[in-house]
Amino acid sequence: MIIQTVACIGGGVIGAGWVARLLENGINVNVFDSASDTQQKMQAVLSNADRAYAKLTMAQRPSKGAIAFSDSMQAAVENAQWIIESVPERIDIKHGVYAEIEKYAANDAVIASSTSGIMPTDLQRNMLHPERLFVAHPFNPVYLLPVVEIVGGEKTASVIIDRAKTFYASLGMKPIHVKKEIEAFVADRLLEAIWRESLWLIKDGITTTQELDDIVRFGFGLRYAQMGVFETYRIAGGEAGMRHFLAQFGPCLKWPWTKLMDVPEYNEELVELIAGQSDQQSGHISIRELERIRDDNLIAIQQALKANDWGAGQVLAEYEKKLFDDGARSVSTGNEVDYSEPILTTERRIPPDWTDYNNHMNEARYLQCFGDATDAFMRMAGCDAAYIESGSSFFTVETHIRHLDEVRVNEPIHTKTQLLAGVGKKIHLFHFMYHADGRLLATGEHMLVHVSLDTRAASFPSQAMQAILSAIAEHHARLPIPDGAGRAVGQSRQH
Amino acid sequence: MIIQTVACIGGGVIGAGWVARLLENGINVNVFDSASDTQQKMQAVLSNADRAYAKLTMAQRPSKGAIAFSDSMQAAVENAQWIIESVPERIDIKHGVYAEIEKYAANDAVIASSTSGIMPTDLQRNMLHPERLFVAHPFNPVYLLPVVEIVGGEKTASVIIDRAKTFYASLGMKPIHVKKEIEAFVADRLLEAIWRESLWLIKDGITTTQELDDIVRFGFGLRYAQMGVFETYRIAGGEAGMRHFLAQFGPCLKWPWTKLMDVPEYNEELVELIAGQSDQQSGHISIRELERIRDDNLIAIQQALKANDWGAGQVLAEYEKKLFDDGARSVSTGNEVDYSEPILTTERRIPPDWTDYNNHMNEARYLQCFGDATDAFMRMAGCDAAYIESGSSFFTVETHIRHLDEVRVNEPIHTKTQLLAGVGKKIHLFHFMYHADGRLLATGEHMLVHVSLDTRAASFPSQAMQAILSAIAEHHARLPIPDGAGRAVGQSRQH
Repeated sequence: MIIQTVACIGGGVIGAGWVARLLENGINVNVFDSASDTQQKMQAVLSNADRAYAKLTMAQRPSKGAIAFSDSMQAAVENAQWIIESVPERIDIKHGVYAEIEKYAANDAVIASSTSGIMPTDLQRNMLHPERLFVAHPFNPVYLLPVVEIVGGEKTASVIIDRAKTFYASLGMKPIHVKKEIEAFVADRLLEAIWRESLWLIKDGITTTQELDDIVRFGFGLRYAQMGVFETYRIAGGEAGMRHFLAQFGPCLKWPWTKLMDVPEYNEELVELIAGQSDQQSGHISIRELERIRDDNLIAIQQALKANDWGAGQVLAEYEKKLFDDGARSVSTGNEVDYSEPILTTERRIPPDWTDYNNHMNEARYLQCFGDATDAFMRMAGCDAAYIESGSSFFTVETHIRHLDEVRVNEPIHTKTQLLAGVGKKIHLFHFMYHADGRLLATGEHMLVHVSLDTRAASFPSQAMQAILSAIAEHHARLPIPDGAGRAVGQSRQH
Repeated sequence: MIIQTVACIGGGVIGAGWVARLLENGINVNVFDSASDTQQKMQAVLSNADRAYAKLTMAQRPSKGAIAFSDSMQAAVENAQWIIESVPERIDIKHGVYAEIEKYAANDAVIASSTSGIMPTDLQRNMLHPERLFVAHPFNPVYLLPVVEIVGGEKTASVIIDRAKTFYASLGMKPIHVKKEIEAFVADRLLEAIWRESLWLIKDGITTTQELDDIVRFGFGLRYAQMGVFETYRIAGGEAGMRHFLAQFGPCLKWPWTKLMDVPEYNEELVELIAGQSDQQSGHISIRELERIRDDNLIAIQQALKANDWGAGQVLAEYEKKLFDDGARSVSTGNEVDYSEPILTTERRIPPDWTDYNNHMNEARYLQCFGDATDAFMRMAGCDAAYIESGSSFFTVETHIRHLDEVRVNEPIHTKTQLLAGVGKKIHLFHFMYHADGRLLATGEHMLVHVSLDTRAASFPSQAMQAILSAIAEHHARLPIPDGAGRAVGQSRQH
């Protein structure tokens, strides 16, 4: 059954988040909410979602669904195959809403409650067709966070749970079926425990909200984005895994390490239950392999946040800035560089994610290396962050690359750079990329233009920079013209 | 004061993590641990760290520090300016270690304990020079997670805390000064609360370790990687912020939403304390702006995890695969493609992390786009995953790019591809990159060679592929030769 029209009853933050996720996935939505400002408030969420989906995936999405603001429950639900209820968290209000829905909706329309706390058995108590009601508890922002807790009540049909899992997965979500009902389900139990402990830490003056938040987002929050509570601790247990971890930390349960002291009894039964489940969950991956997966994820997350100039990514950026500054010192002062031969501009090993399906460095990374070599050369000539900040830079206008040999992951490479011409507004660079074993891997020939960042038009470099460039050009003019310079694609050798 | 040599006393997981972070930052380390297998166990952590740092940053790092395994406390600490203690969590053991350190170390050598639970005032109680001891509590993996809790005891000198913040920041870490001592400090308080609640959820049979972990890593774990407890809830409060959130959820503190029921009293004083701190922390950013920052981070994290084929990234990958399948374009089957003009090979928007310090698409991304266009063209000609699996592929041997115009984040671009020659073992491609507004942004001219992946030598494409390439080449021979084709860097126009 293909869901074409969903009714969303209640248009607060959670309801609006559902509407956004549905529309972005090409599903039509009828919204019913008695509040007069629903439409206006919802617009803010919908435009956030539009903005987010443009970035989330490069894949072509279906045409957006149509949204209709219904002026009655009847209009909203009568043609809907799926009904999402996100009204306030009071059971009397929810019971009233279900009674009205059942008056107008088809008997087989599915009803999903977004409640974060009330048990579905209690929700479905007075319904005519209770088998179609379940809880689908999402998290803010609903249009971006994958998880949705699926919880059935005593009377919920199992086929409805199966349909729910399929439907939410088709929206790009990760449905998790919580098989036993409790108030607040699973995620909010954990969040409530953190929340209560956090309130104590602030109230007792141990920390501020800022410090506490930083301790989360620069620390265990990064881990939880990729592995949960048990898999993380399984690694901490080392090769001996979960049993070792439990043996080590089980006794702490009796220690006053949280204000929250109602703890389960630590005994053999608890150890077996948890260690057994952990084996089933992660036992097929060795601890060493789990460590590598974790490390790769932590790196990728920090690099992703660096691109957004936020949180742990800012720490990484500052660290790199310091490394660049430290490393720039050796090449930043023209005097120390030997101009009598091509200048060493970069040295690195090939990172694992630079290789492609042909199991060698991807062609685009060659240009990335040459771009870095150009940057290093420019910094040496005085085009550093401060110079760019002051309003000028170099833009590459033309590139010629000869891919001469392959290079694989972790292999060490370096670049040397020869200045073919450096007078006026243009510079003409020639990079040699070498393997540490001496093989020439590639050459890059580049024309750059000095520009004003205001007008984006060509301009002259500063006097100081022109002086450095002239000095280098004068020395490099004595070097042989590199093999491949001035060559067009497919042209036979000129030199 | 520049730290050149650090002594690490205790070489378990945490001690080894410290050693790794120090060595990667060019600092020499003396290790002392009486266990006989320290060196061997530590090697595993050090090689993990080597692997991680090769990926973490492209910046040039200092030469690795030297590691020495000392056979006595004296040898380890006598020339060290900084001493890191990571021995088992028993105060009697730690007191013994400090007494020995003080026998041999310089009086002004700093001593940092990695304890996760014991208060520094208790640690420094019997010391001769207690002012130099403090807690620096890191998190696993120490070489990658930025956070470190800095906690001083009653006798710790404030200058030592300042030096600690500077030193750990220089190692790429985020030191957070916890100003009031409690057992287990801040992060482990929160983690212990989650842990205790998690044990209940497993013990009570509500969920399995796998389901609980999934609920974390596909849900709030993604949020916590970029914003903490309070900033996240500030957003949930909407424009009214933290006060509104507290008013809405404060009463829940009395509800049985966790097994952990020792809660602070919810009153006006608590609200003012928390809302006031939250204002100070995040009040300079509007809720709308916080939402956008959060969304960008959640997207970037999911995309980063997609590259690692893990967790929330797998969900995104499956979602995209479904979108690609649904929208499978005509370009996949040769017959449907119109050969009478250059072929549409890619369409995309510029992702946020593709721009550089000049605020436009980085030059290397031009080649990435052209590489993707080449891949799309090759797939169309039958060089798909199965063909490559069978042992042949195309390698790019030469590239010429003209960067004609700038393009910025989120702007839509597409490429069209003309086959200049496609007979024998070589193909000669010419890509046009257009902005959706019609501007020609760049051209890419590429020579590729068909190779055997076994021998890495040139070979002929399959008969079927040669037939498709010939057909395209025949049609494209009727098109004008593109402006810029056959051009060398710096050469004036030929056409």
